[in-house]
Amino acid sequence: MLEHFFSPSSVAVVGASQKPGKIGHDILNNILRYGYSGAVYPINPNAREILGHKAYHNLASVHYDIDLAVIAVPPAGVMDVVEQCGKKKIDSAVIITAGFKEIGPEGTRLEEELSMRARDLGVRIVGPNCLGIVDTASSLNASFAAGMPLPGHIGFFSQSGAMCVAILDWALGENVGFSRFVSLGNKMDISETEMMLSMAQDENTRVILGYLESIEDGQHFMKAAREVTKTKPVIIIKSGTTSSGAKAASSHTGALVGSNHAFCAAFEQSGVIRAESTQELFSYAMAFANQPLPKGPGLAIITNSGGPGILAADACDRSSLHLIPIRKETADRLREFLPPTASVYNPIDIIGDAPHERYEKTLEVVLKDEMIHAVLVLLTPTAAVDPEAVARGIVELAADVDKPIMTVFMGERRVRGARKIFQDHSIPTYGYPEDAIAAMDAMLSYRRWRERSEIEYQRFEVDRSKVRKIFASVIKQHRHDLIESEARRILKTYGFRLPESRIARTTKEAVKAASEVGYPVVMKIASPDVLHKSDMGGVRVGIENEAMAKDAFFHITSNMQLRQPRARILGVMVQEMISQGREVILGITRDIQFGPMIMFGLGGIYVEVLKDVAFRIAPLSVEEADAMIRDIRSFPLLRGVRGEPAADIEGIRDALLRLSQMAIDFPEIIEADINPLLVCPEGRGAVAVDARITIQE
Amino acid sequence: MLEHFFSPSSVAVVGASQKPGKIGHDILNNILRYGYSGAVYPINPNAREILGHKAYHNLASVHYDIDLAVIAVPPAGVMDVVEQCGKKKIDSAVIITAGFKEIGPEGTRLEEELSMRARDLGVRIVGPNCLGIVDTASSLNASFAAGMPLPGHIGFFSQSGAMCVAILDWALGENVGFSRFVSLGNKMDISETEMMLSMAQDENTRVILGYLESIEDGQHFMKAAREVTKTKPVIIIKSGTTSSGAKAASSHTGALVGSNHAFCAAFEQSGVIRAESTQELFSYAMAFANQPLPKGPGLAIITNSGGPGILAADACDRSSLHLIPIRKETADRLREFLPPTASVYNPIDIIGDAPHERYEKTLEVVLKDEMIHAVLVLLTPTAAVDPEAVARGIVELAADVDKPIMTVFMGERRVRGARKIFQDHSIPTYGYPEDAIAAMDAMLSYRRWRERSEIEYQRFEVDRSKVRKIFASVIKQHRHDLIESEARRILKTYGFRLPESRIARTTKEAVKAASEVGYPVVMKIASPDVLHKSDMGGVRVGIENEAMAKDAFFHITSNMQLRQPRARILGVMVQEMISQGREVILGITRDIQFGPMIMFGLGGIYVEVLKDVAFRIAPLSVEEADAMIRDIRSFPLLRGVRGEPAADIEGIRDALLRLSQMAIDFPEIIEADINPLLVCPEGRGAVAVDARITIQE
Repeated sequence: MLEHFFSPSSVAVVGASQKPGKIGHDILNNILRYGYSGAVYPINPNAREILGHKAYHNLASVHYDIDLAVIAVPPAGVMDVVEQCGKKKIDSAVIITAGFKEIGPEGTRLEEELSMRARDLGVRIVGPNCLGIVDTASSLNASFAAGMPLPGHIGFFSQSGAMCVAILDWALGENVGFSRFVSLGNKMDISETEMMLSMAQDENTRVILGYLESIEDGQHFMKAAREVTKTKPVIIIKSGTTSSGAKAASSHTGALVGSNHAFCAAFEQSGVIRAESTQELFSYAMAFANQPLPKGPGLAIITNSGGPGILAADACDRSSLHLIPIRKETADRLREFLPPTASVYNPIDIIGDAPHERYEKTLEVVLKDEMIHAVLVLLTPTAAVDPEAVARGIVELAADVDKPIMTVFMGERRVRGARKIFQDHSIPTYGYPEDAIAAMDAMLSYRRWRERSEIEYQRFEVDRSKVRKIFASVIKQHRHDLIESEARRILKTYGFRLPESRIARTTKEAVKAASEVGYPVVMKIASPDVLHKSDMGGVRVGIENEAMAKDAFFHITSNMQLRQPRARILGVMVQEMISQGREVILGITRDIQFGPMIMFGLGGIYVEVLKDVAFRIAPLSVEEADAMIRDIRSFPLLRGVRGEPAADIEGIRDALLRLSQMAIDFPEIIEADINPLLVCPEGRGAVAVDARITIQE
Repeated sequence: MLEHFFSPSSVAVVGASQKPGKIGHDILNNILRYGYSGAVYPINPNAREILGHKAYHNLASVHYDIDLAVIAVPPAGVMDVVEQCGKKKIDSAVIITAGFKEIGPEGTRLEEELSMRARDLGVRIVGPNCLGIVDTASSLNASFAAGMPLPGHIGFFSQSGAMCVAILDWALGENVGFSRFVSLGNKMDISETEMMLSMAQDENTRVILGYLESIEDGQHFMKAAREVTKTKPVIIIKSGTTSSGAKAASSHTGALVGSNHAFCAAFEQSGVIRAESTQELFSYAMAFANQPLPKGPGLAIITNSGGPGILAADACDRSSLHLIPIRKETADRLREFLPPTASVYNPIDIIGDAPHERYEKTLEVVLKDEMIHAVLVLLTPTAAVDPEAVARGIVELAADVDKPIMTVFMGERRVRGARKIFQDHSIPTYGYPEDAIAAMDAMLSYRRWRERSEIEYQRFEVDRSKVRKIFASVIKQHRHDLIESEARRILKTYGFRLPESRIARTTKEAVKAASEVGYPVVMKIASPDVLHKSDMGGVRVGIENEAMAKDAFFHITSNMQLRQPRARILGVMVQEMISQGREVILGITRDIQFGPMIMFGLGGIYVEVLKDVAFRIAPLSVEEADAMIRDIRSFPLLRGVRGEPAADIEGIRDALLRLSQMAIDFPEIIEADINPLLVCPEGRGAVAVDARITIQE
């Protein structure tokens, strides 16, 4: 996939320049100097030779096949170069040139034209407005970056060229190797999803790292990520998550920035590891690129000092790792050589006078204990210890072991040499215990993601034509909001349990309906124009007998005449009243990047005041529906507290899955609420009492 | 304060040794090699000269005054040296020697004896079991650390010697200067509080940094910190905050580890800035030591690239800083020289081709805008920019400005030189935007703390002798739990409003009491032995008339005979029933380090299921009581939602303050609950419906 971008047999640099400092010069120079072995063709109508290579007038004048064109001409000339690519059957081009979508409406138009033409011609594009691409396996540096990353196993793509520059410089300083390095630019053609899929197939790439400000097609991304993460970890830092950040993002790349809820849900549902900060992105990358995943949560900490050990233990407690008690056999073996004041509990404190041999022996014993799945080695540069000797010992022991080992050597001056040794031997090393624990925790979560059972989706039999008819009639009436009876019919079609109900147009009809439905009943106004029925005095509950029913009908209808005289009134809905049950709210919203999102929370103040809600992107799997129910803080209330019966969790799950299917089946639903869904005690299901659905053509 | 420790005219090293690698050698060597100008006396009975200095048999044989003794003899010999100190009127000693409290019961006994003797002799002690102390102003390095910190403005004390070693090495690597460096060891005599107070008086110290595992006297610490933080920031990393961490802490220093709730509250109430990780401790230290505090939340970000700008904006949104819109005058001035594609919004994006001059001009304009209180300069090492030139420009502009400036130069290799320039000129520089924003945010919070009005405590008139009598009678009866009528009398004495009530011993009395109190009433068993009255069937609510009263009396008393036949029954309490009101819970608990803690939360599931509670250490100021009410997530419920009336917040505050005074007045109260306190609608106060008080002799 995208082979011509990363291992082309020949590359043309269109806009190659003789002047150092010019982008067209720097790119050509980068391609030539880092050992790329294919043919290189500088294209420049005004030069005969550039950097010792024959220059060509245009692409057509090159009488050899070209796999990849790197384009660095001014924006007005890009279209012509793409045309030339088409003619010459060059199927891959990196457009470095800026001045498109990111500069406003005019650039956006230009980019759209370019995009259509390239598609017609069959030319795939990375960019425009990007730094270029690098592949260390083929020694290709088709970018104007200052430097070439070392070969390694991290594939990185970035929507920001600056992040490429920064990460490259950091990687060179810290000796971190990369397989591929891609600046996506405006993502006119090749998106993050395609790039991720291509890196998934690249055998040199073990970890995929990304910096994103937006996602082009959220559903496609999730589907792809779910596949990729089965074999390779994908770690992404998503910026523009807050309103200020999003504002900065849109002014900068013209990207549509999705809500943070949607991103959280999407990443969680597709196994993408989210880095919360730049620092985390780097820490995680170091861990995942070089270490096996832990087989379980059991962590041992080896330290020569108490303080850092406690800090690490604190961080461990906040993670899903488990600082397991060292079992007797292992403790006994440790006691054989450790001084009596050492602690063989966890953290294992081999105390301040520990020389490197003590570190080695301890690590050796600990690694042999199969209850211990991962090891963190802490070192404080005491007078007794030679940090570099310890580092060499760890490197040697780590070589034959299928357990992740991380190191934190506190300080700076005295541990620099040791850090270098770790970097050279791909042992992750961190400045602070907290960072190491966070990285190990991410590895454990990823391992669990990989081990989870295959996702299962449940499909319900639904006669969709019924729903289609209702929507058609609503649209015909130039409405967007469904009235309750329409919403009820749709829910019924999707298999929701509804309370018994009748529409009554007169007092007499109301009394009849109530006796049919059975007291107690609820009465509600039925009108396409009244959305917040309670607020308008359009709802009465707990109607116990005929007299109350008459009274309720009178008051509801007169309230409407008084408060919303222009509302079209279809009657009053007389409904079975379900008394025992917990109110929950289910909803559908649409995210601009990920599409249908399902919302869940407990009714009333839990959603409104405490904002105690969970979101997932539809379609929901059975496991995801369960997870979102458990995610809310008030979940214990559903399980039952203070002797109350447990609510029917399966009923909620069933409702969530049906709602999810509805959201997928009908993209015209832009908003829906089931509020409340009354959840009966365990085993007795849930009833959708009221619903609101809004559609768009 | 503690002057002889930090600027002694003469120092004796007891246990000085000729052998390199021995602690007694390294300390002497450190004192001699870093330029300490006072007299130095090695003490060693077996040497005539050490490191070129005449050695003495013992302290008595030195015929000059000695200000400070540094003791590094084996544990069994320490007592004798302290005796010698007493005889020679040496009032200050650092005990390096380990083998005391940290090794178990025997060491604890030895330490206690030593402590008593030192106090009798008037010898103040740092340690034992410590690394030593350093004061850069007097060039004194009385420690066995490998190196001497550069002079600077950070005072650091640490309960862990390892953290001293690590921080010293980090500081030397990063060019960070210190005023003082103290390893507190076992804190046998001089505690963190005294050390903090001494650093507060030291003119070279601008920021006080601490690593703590425990606090010796929480109330004393808070009082001192509240004073110190008026003029100097105190930043503390407290480890052992989680159960694993605490377990590691106790096995390591034998310190009692307080609950995290208590520490959070104590730090917040005394203005101490809490570092959540080692990294934060360092970041904050760099910021506070070298930069003025921001005068307000207005932050401007200057960047040459979008991505890092967005990351910084995201971090800003999560903080209390405000990424203010750049006002027109400033934007116009920026537009005069910035290229058209630059963004003069905030972040100000001066784009990738910005040379150092553009950085300088932009920073100059931004610094002149008085709406902007702080500036963060971001740089990505693009080809166009010379990071060192930018750094020099910033350093120059920062010299005359009373606004904090922080820098984040992304990358590593190409920005190393620039970082060095910042370090040399005390401009805080960070690897990642998130860290810089966090440090700036901490500075803003601290500024607000300093500007807050003086704390006011409210005292209520209370006849404490009444309470004392009740406690005396309870103790006399060998009880710890007060019965309800006792608890009620105490609350009444403390000015709480209580529901009307009577004790009834017969059905007849119950009926009479109910009519006196007025229907509806509540009836509850009155017994010193029944703590959970509801669970035992000992409570009936909503009693509306005589018949119900008779029935309730019968059932409550028979339930007791059935379920808890041995309980001593004093009768049935007949109580006014308050129907309208929100249930809240107030409580007292005791923290082992900080003493009385006040708890607050909404009744029922809010406390039990959602754990939505706030804690503060008593005594509470008026502002602290208000803050803890606002702190709970469910606070909006008290303010009134969905048309419900607001609850009487002042009534809650009044109750919290009275409870706080009670906790302070009577340390024998180890636990108390007012559950529920029924809070009436605004202006109508709150009623303590039920209370539980537990005391200890």
